[in-house]
Amino acid sequence: MKVCVLSTGNEVLLGDIVDTNSVFLARGLKEMGIEVFKIMAVGDDLETIVSVLKEISSQVDICLVTGGLGPTQDDLTALACSKACGDRLVMNEKALADMKIYFGKRGYELTRENKKQALLPAGSTMIPNESGTAPGFYIKINRCLFVFMPGVPAEMKFMFAHQVKPMLAAQYHLRTEIFIERLTVFGLGESRVGALLKDFNKYYPELAIGFRADFPIIEVKVMLADQVSSAKGAQTRIQAAKEWVCSQLGRKIVSHKGLSLAQEVAQNLIQKGLTLSVAESCTGGLISNMMTDIDGSSAYFLFSAVTYSNEAKVNVLNVSEKTLIDYGAVHEQTALEMARGARLKAGADVAISTTGIAGPTGGTVEKPVGTVCIGISGNDVEMAKQYHFKFDDRLQNKLMFATMALELLRRQLSQ
Amino acid sequence: MKVCVLSTGNEVLLGDIVDTNSVFLARGLKEMGIEVFKIMAVGDDLETIVSVLKEISSQVDICLVTGGLGPTQDDLTALACSKACGDRLVMNEKALADMKIYFGKRGYELTRENKKQALLPAGSTMIPNESGTAPGFYIKINRCLFVFMPGVPAEMKFMFAHQVKPMLAAQYHLRTEIFIERLTVFGLGESRVGALLKDFNKYYPELAIGFRADFPIIEVKVMLADQVSSAKGAQTRIQAAKEWVCSQLGRKIVSHKGLSLAQEVAQNLIQKGLTLSVAESCTGGLISNMMTDIDGSSAYFLFSAVTYSNEAKVNVLNVSEKTLIDYGAVHEQTALEMARGARLKAGADVAISTTGIAGPTGGTVEKPVGTVCIGISGNDVEMAKQYHFKFDDRLQNKLMFATMALELLRRQLSQ
Repeated sequence: MKVCVLSTGNEVLLGDIVDTNSVFLARGLKEMGIEVFKIMAVGDDLETIVSVLKEISSQVDICLVTGGLGPTQDDLTALACSKACGDRLVMNEKALADMKIYFGKRGYELTRENKKQALLPAGSTMIPNESGTAPGFYIKINRCLFVFMPGVPAEMKFMFAHQVKPMLAAQYHLRTEIFIERLTVFGLGESRVGALLKDFNKYYPELAIGFRADFPIIEVKVMLADQVSSAKGAQTRIQAAKEWVCSQLGRKIVSHKGLSLAQEVAQNLIQKGLTLSVAESCTGGLISNMMTDIDGSSAYFLFSAVTYSNEAKVNVLNVSEKTLIDYGAVHEQTALEMARGARLKAGADVAISTTGIAGPTGGTVEKPVGTVCIGISGNDVEMAKQYHFKFDDRLQNKLMFATMALELLRRQLSQ
Repeated sequence: MKVCVLSTGNEVLLGDIVDTNSVFLARGLKEMGIEVFKIMAVGDDLETIVSVLKEISSQVDICLVTGGLGPTQDDLTALACSKACGDRLVMNEKALADMKIYFGKRGYELTRENKKQALLPAGSTMIPNESGTAPGFYIKINRCLFVFMPGVPAEMKFMFAHQVKPMLAAQYHLRTEIFIERLTVFGLGESRVGALLKDFNKYYPELAIGFRADFPIIEVKVMLADQVSSAKGAQTRIQAAKEWVCSQLGRKIVSHKGLSLAQEVAQNLIQKGLTLSVAESCTGGLISNMMTDIDGSSAYFLFSAVTYSNEAKVNVLNVSEKTLIDYGAVHEQTALEMARGARLKAGADVAISTTGIAGPTGGTVEKPVGTVCIGISGNDVEMAKQYHFKFDDRLQNKLMFATMALELLRRQLSQ
């Protein structure tokens, strides 16, 4: 079975955004045992979309299409589909009714532009959009089943998970159980992870291994090799393979359940009934933001002080002026006092701190860009460490510093 | 002129990595006035690559190809090209000599696998690789000039900038100036922006308009329609069109230079020589993180307190206990006292605050999920406002709250 993914929209073609939708879909299909043979992106040009759809219709069995279902003039996908298959566009009453409810709830008026979104090719089947306005649809043209989804990533992901995946599984008799185990790894580059696991296929030829780098985290997936692999006993075989992977990667595994580092820290805090404070300098609120992105974070997250200025470090966190004079802002002693101050100020059980130089400016010979000191203060432990990372990019440094701080906290909590 | 970009390699097809090479090349070509009409990715499969190259050769004028030039068995691009054009592979002596120098310098032995990299199609022109081992090459097949580059991003980027760009500019007499204007819009949905600008093409038929939604911000771009549009007087025409767009969107324009809202606020602060503090509850550090993502933010950013607990609001920000008892945490009065506290604590010129309910839990009938109070405190202004947004998603609410707070600050600063 030949499967491809097509994204439409000028943004990708003009180099404005990276096409993450296609990667998401390729990954989702891979989990169903389907390998995508081609990914394509074309702009918001009617003629181009029509010709690409026609071309695909005779070459491919399934094509997932994203984008171009919005209300604006440059949203042309439904029209292009209608031209490619010869069906005229008709108002889909169910889609229109859904949209009326969506807008009514929010007190918005349904514009003529919005109504356009409910115009679908006559022979197509509407796919409800439960997280936005533009409905999706699917239609067979020549040998190919085309599935059209919105380009807004959140809407597309929701629709793929709740509507498209079950529909494809039913139509093509694909396995719906997910035979996949995920591990989250920090502290090894992708090539090093690959080298450590290079014998995987020798030991587990019936399984596949996949890597996904989400800087600075690597996700490792263990799954059935393809759609035709027998699902019988798959869970047991995958568990055995996962154990081998764990033995190869050892302490670099952050989560055995594929959780993000922040989620893993949150679970540890909740399990132990501990509360957290944070004192951030160079990470500028990133650690707090990562921790409060998690639902229910108010159960453990009390307080964070983002103290960019020395005055704030002294006034809010009670860092001693002598420490700042003797050692400077980027030092283990300062990090330690910041963490202690954040913990005491909010009455938290544990606190972490960061102070460093994210760049691109502010580095010195002794403390170059990429230097960070991380402190931890708890009821029965106080420590601080200095690290040097070698990124030129401010955002990469912020992310690496925040990740390292959360990893130190995770190790402390799991002791 | 039809131009496309093709990347080869299994990683993208399996959903393991995002194809950033293609976006880089699309942006580079756009800056030369060339719009890419199609981006494609295929796996390391000889038959697929050959058929895609053949297909492209009769449809497209220029195709930039990345990946598959390495030493391993799954690097098949040169072979695929030779099969697509009918030229046999021959040892390129210059490429081999370059590789010998590269390896000699590093004390490595040149392996048989590496020598394979110097085997290029007979009719091709070699492109030296000054930052790695695999040479690139270009060759015309049917109507299309194919340019093959390595898949390693650093090597590809260097080769594109130093070899491919000048070669293309010379061969196709391309312009090198950039004709594009960007505007940032907040407070209107994409459909509303589209409706307000629907007559653009009537007034400015020689120009193109593009939209990019980056929730909750919409970017509007005004540019030359395509590479054949005359560049003569383009800047003047684009400026006139931009003014019309501004008159249509009015106060909803956040930046006339296409800056992000945080960048626009930062520029306003720098221009006025003002410093900033932030007090965050429901946004959990997001505002601070957005502001400190900007290079040089220590010039104006002093301090942020992420006060999730009421104790922290009282202890750190001096919010009165009576206010919390009388009005609760989510109230204009609390927001006002939080902003005032953050400003005074750090001695900042201006401060903003947020307190609200990001969800998914914590909402009540009077204060449902999506409620936020935003405070501003400056030397000569104090104010607070309550807003209700209707998102079910915690991260969308956080982002909307943070954006609204920065927008209120921007309006205050630009008065």
